[in-house]
Amino acid sequence: MKTDISILPHERVDDLHRKGYRIIQDPKRFCFGADAVLLSGFAKVKTGERVLDLGSGTGIIPILLAARYPVGEVIGLEIQAESVEMANRSVALNALENVVQIIEGDIKTVAERFGGATFDVVTTNPPYMNEGGGLLNPYNPKAIARHELLCSLEDIIANSAKVLKPNGRFYMIHRPHRLTDILVLLRQYHLEPKMLRMVHPFMDKAPAMVLIEAVRGGKPMLKVASPLVIYDAPNVYTEEIQQIYYGE
Amino acid sequence: MKTDISILPHERVDDLHRKGYRIIQDPKRFCFGADAVLLSGFAKVKTGERVLDLGSGTGIIPILLAARYPVGEVIGLEIQAESVEMANRSVALNALENVVQIIEGDIKTVAERFGGATFDVVTTNPPYMNEGGGLLNPYNPKAIARHELLCSLEDIIANSAKVLKPNGRFYMIHRPHRLTDILVLLRQYHLEPKMLRMVHPFMDKAPAMVLIEAVRGGKPMLKVASPLVIYDAPNVYTEEIQQIYYGE
Repeated sequence: MKTDISILPHERVDDLHRKGYRIIQDPKRFCFGADAVLLSGFAKVKTGERVLDLGSGTGIIPILLAARYPVGEVIGLEIQAESVEMANRSVALNALENVVQIIEGDIKTVAERFGGATFDVVTTNPPYMNEGGGLLNPYNPKAIARHELLCSLEDIIANSAKVLKPNGRFYMIHRPHRLTDILVLLRQYHLEPKMLRMVHPFMDKAPAMVLIEAVRGGKPMLKVASPLVIYDAPNVYTEEIQQIYYGE
Repeated sequence: MKTDISILPHERVDDLHRKGYRIIQDPKRFCFGADAVLLSGFAKVKTGERVLDLGSGTGIIPILLAARYPVGEVIGLEIQAESVEMANRSVALNALENVVQIIEGDIKTVAERFGGATFDVVTTNPPYMNEGGGLLNPYNPKAIARHELLCSLEDIIANSAKVLKPNGRFYMIHRPHRLTDILVLLRQYHLEPKMLRMVHPFMDKAPAMVLIEAVRGGKPMLKVASPLVIYDAPNVYTEEIQQIYYGE
């Protein structure tokens, strides 16, 4: 660990089990979950590509992408200033300043900020919940990360379409109950769904998450992959999940 | 078997393993497959409900629905006259004339023919293929059953929406690579997707089919079910498939 990176008393530092990278998290705010790790394993980034991660939170996805792939540049956009500051300390902790940048900003202004058709890849692990938002404190960091308070699914998809180059790839993890909304919006904004993978806690259970790849201007033809199963038995990861978490 | 039902030399009679019902098929035309059986197990029909099956072929789905559920009436619509004649002999063979009727007609005219909002349930195992149709003989019975030559997926969904009562249910089996088309069209015609189940040949393989339930005027909230797996091992059906095929 670099010695000049400050860790505040309420923060913790977690090992990412990949290239020795670590991440700073604040349990009172929002800690990353399996979804971020699964998305970083599902997204494919080629050598030198330019990636935009929307709603980066702790910076987990940009840092995992930089750990996994020979990315050119990853920009993480995050609307909460405190998260941005903490995420950039994690970037520095891993000496990734030349590759990863976490920037404060609103998803709804990405095209003005970065220019249209400027990214090869967009990744996003957005808020899942589109109901009950009215009951929540809109200044609560966990509520912002989990509910569509500051941006909707349509905002994310519409703005991803603007900043992706033609044939650029969009990767998202979301909840299966939103699948119709997701596929309808992707097609509406000309991000054609090309690959879908359901994530099941156990083999014989309903999926808890869905991974989606879409291509800007792609032809209609969706490949639905084999199920991705998390556990073989309670607390025992499947071989494939161990590979995604810990494999090189 | 009734003795007054004629079976032609090129036809065969197959046992449906349910209430002793049988079906007449012509191997030169189109024989039913696992998809029809899976759809009849996935569709739920309540006592006395009125069902329309679109593109009935041999009449397999109407007959299986009548075998499984206390249906009020099942009308099977089929565009090929020879199939209609053969299917009605199967209906008679099972003494189902009071419940099941196979009618010759075009899916695109169902609302004019039966009236709008007149069915509780629509089922359909439509042609899967939307490509390569131009290379096919449009008078070939197998080509008509497999390819979107005489009706498109949009025709099926648009016309199902017309004949379903409010809250009426639409059940379809199709191929996963068409899932975006399916969900987009269902929502467009206000048949909200409510349940989706992927059918996998083996647990660790990509799905070969997808079962879908939609509700006319339903609220958005899709439930994706656990995977339906066909084989535990080569030629060994899973417990659940045995139940769908042979269970009472």
